[in-house]
Amino acid sequence: MNKIDYQFKVNFGDTDAAGIVFYPNYYRWMDQATHHFFTTLGFPTSTLIRDEKVGTPIIESKCNFKFPLFFDDEVTIESTMTEMKEKVFTIEHVFLKDGNKIAGGYEVRAWCDISGERPKAIAIPNEVRDAVEKMKLIAQS
Amino acid sequence: MNKIDYQFKVNFGDTDAAGIVFYPNYYRWMDQATHHFFTTLGFPTSTLIRDEKVGTPIIESKCNFKFPLFFDDEVTIESTMTEMKEKVFTIEHVFLKDGNKIAGGYEVRAWCDISGERPKAIAIPNEVRDAVEKMKLIAQS
Amino acid sequence: MNKIDYQFKVNFGDTDAAGIVFYPNYYRWMDQATHHFFTTLGFPTSTLIRDEKVGTPIIESKCNFKFPLFFDDEVTIESTMTEMKEKVFTIEHVFLKDGNKIAGGYEVRAWCDISGERPKAIAIPNEVRDAVEKMKLIAQS
Amino acid sequence: MNKIDYQFKVNFGDTDAAGIVFYPNYYRWMDQATHHFFTTLGFPTSTLIRDEKVGTPIIESKCNFKFPLFFDDEVTIESTMTEMKEKVFTIEHVFLKDGNKIAGGYEVRAWCDISGERPKAIAIPNEVRDAVEKMKLIAQS
Repeated sequence: MNKIDYQFKVNFGDTDAAGIVFYPNYYRWMDQATHHFFTTLGFPTSTLIRDEKVGTPIIESKCNFKFPLFFDDEVTIESTMTEMKEKVFTIEHVFLKDGNKIAGGYEVRAWCDISGERPKAIAIPNEVRDAVEKMKLIAQS
Repeated sequence: MNKIDYQFKVNFGDTDAAGIVFYPNYYRWMDQATHHFFTTLGFPTSTLIRDEKVGTPIIESKCNFKFPLFFDDEVTIESTMTEMKEKVFTIEHVFLKDGNKIAGGYEVRAWCDISGERPKAIAIPNEVRDAVEKMKLIAQS
Repeated sequence: MNKIDYQFKVNFGDTDAAGIVFYPNYYRWMDQATHHFFTTLGFPTSTLIRDEKVGTPIIESKCNFKFPLFFDDEVTIESTMTEMKEKVFTIEHVFLKDGNKIAGGYEVRAWCDISGERPKAIAIPNEVRDAVEKMKLIAQS
Repeated sequence: MNKIDYQFKVNFGDTDAAGIVFYPNYYRWMDQATHHFFTTLGFPTSTLIRDEKVGTPIIESKCNFKFPLFFDDEVTIESTMTEMKEKVFTIEHVFLKDGNKIAGGYEVRAWCDISGERPKAIAIPNEVRDAVEKMKLIAQS
């Protein structure tokens, strides 16, 4: 199974008074990795949101923290799709520093029409489904 | 079982381009609720961190999102301790708006000596344990 | 001249690896103080944004930092209107801790129609102008 | 006069309910640009902070906002040193999108010993001064 890599550097402001990364930032980075995932796949989320009024609001997220991150650390997130239901998908994110896993989590999100007042779940388009399968970003059944 | 309430208002900057709260902020608020929990219990975390060099780094966190939050929403987080091991505890957070549950999650954290370069887990002090039990913030065994 | 007070507490995540508040947060708090200013005046900005499609995008902001802020500090921001032109206003913010000034800045903002793709400056409504003058939140000419 | 370029992309979470970038983020990016400036110059700020206990707390900052930024915009910040006093320096930041200036500001910061409880201003080292002049990042007097 292939993965899509998202790379970033820990900024000074991402740390807290204990000198390590303030943990909600991991979720900010997972969110960035998911946007990067669809953009790399050929579906830039900025275009989805602005032109097609499609967003992917969060349903559930989780993260396990093994080792702390520090200012200036270079981090890679490896993202894969672990499940695609009709309207809902699960994307897994592994945080690596120098090749070692430092944290890992996932996000469950819904494919949504965001043109109305509140997001409304709709079917994940076949072209997105096909792109994920073609790039082997999900375990084939 | 009793709960400790933490109240806040959603700020303008907490929302994203879809007009709803950007989800990593829920973890920021869970973190604030945990600090508020120990402070209310009689152990202000700012004192713990500064004077006793004790912190509670995150091991695992999770959140389920049922309904979106919007700018100016008034939110209450109800926090309870669901497990206290020797060095590690789990604190549960329920997000309420107008009495309705809009999200719920938990944090697993370690009681740590943060005087060194990296946090080192140590036993949760008995006075903390006793305060939690005395205030019935954990299910009695 | 009267002032409108906005009160907040410094959260753990607001600090950086040097143990003091990461400075962009002061602007986040100035933004909150401005929203609080109009809301207290009788014009809740959440209603303005959602129902009237009116926002107040920033044109210029500045801050002077005299003393650092730390985790758990209780802070008051005193806000006054120092200038109201046809479409643009300047709001001044003074940060106080235990009665001492620790920082001070201002924001220049435009009263804008945000119903279109990009914000468009429009005249500040007379009822807003009148409320500011009636509450003596601006130096009378 | 030469400039040091810092490049970044606007993330989804950087925008607010009006769909444009929430302005305190510009200061976050200026802070990142300053860290990048010294790191590029040969003085990585993460090393300065951790090993030499030297930081550069903010004294004053200002920004003018000409055009809004949107999700996925690619932005370059051009940074130059406009003044270096004994202990205090001013660094100017120009935000460019597709070659057009969209915002501009500056930061005044003090070179500080951060080994104690509170930062203490100390003389900017000659090697930093020399590097800035050698790379022509400041107007020669």
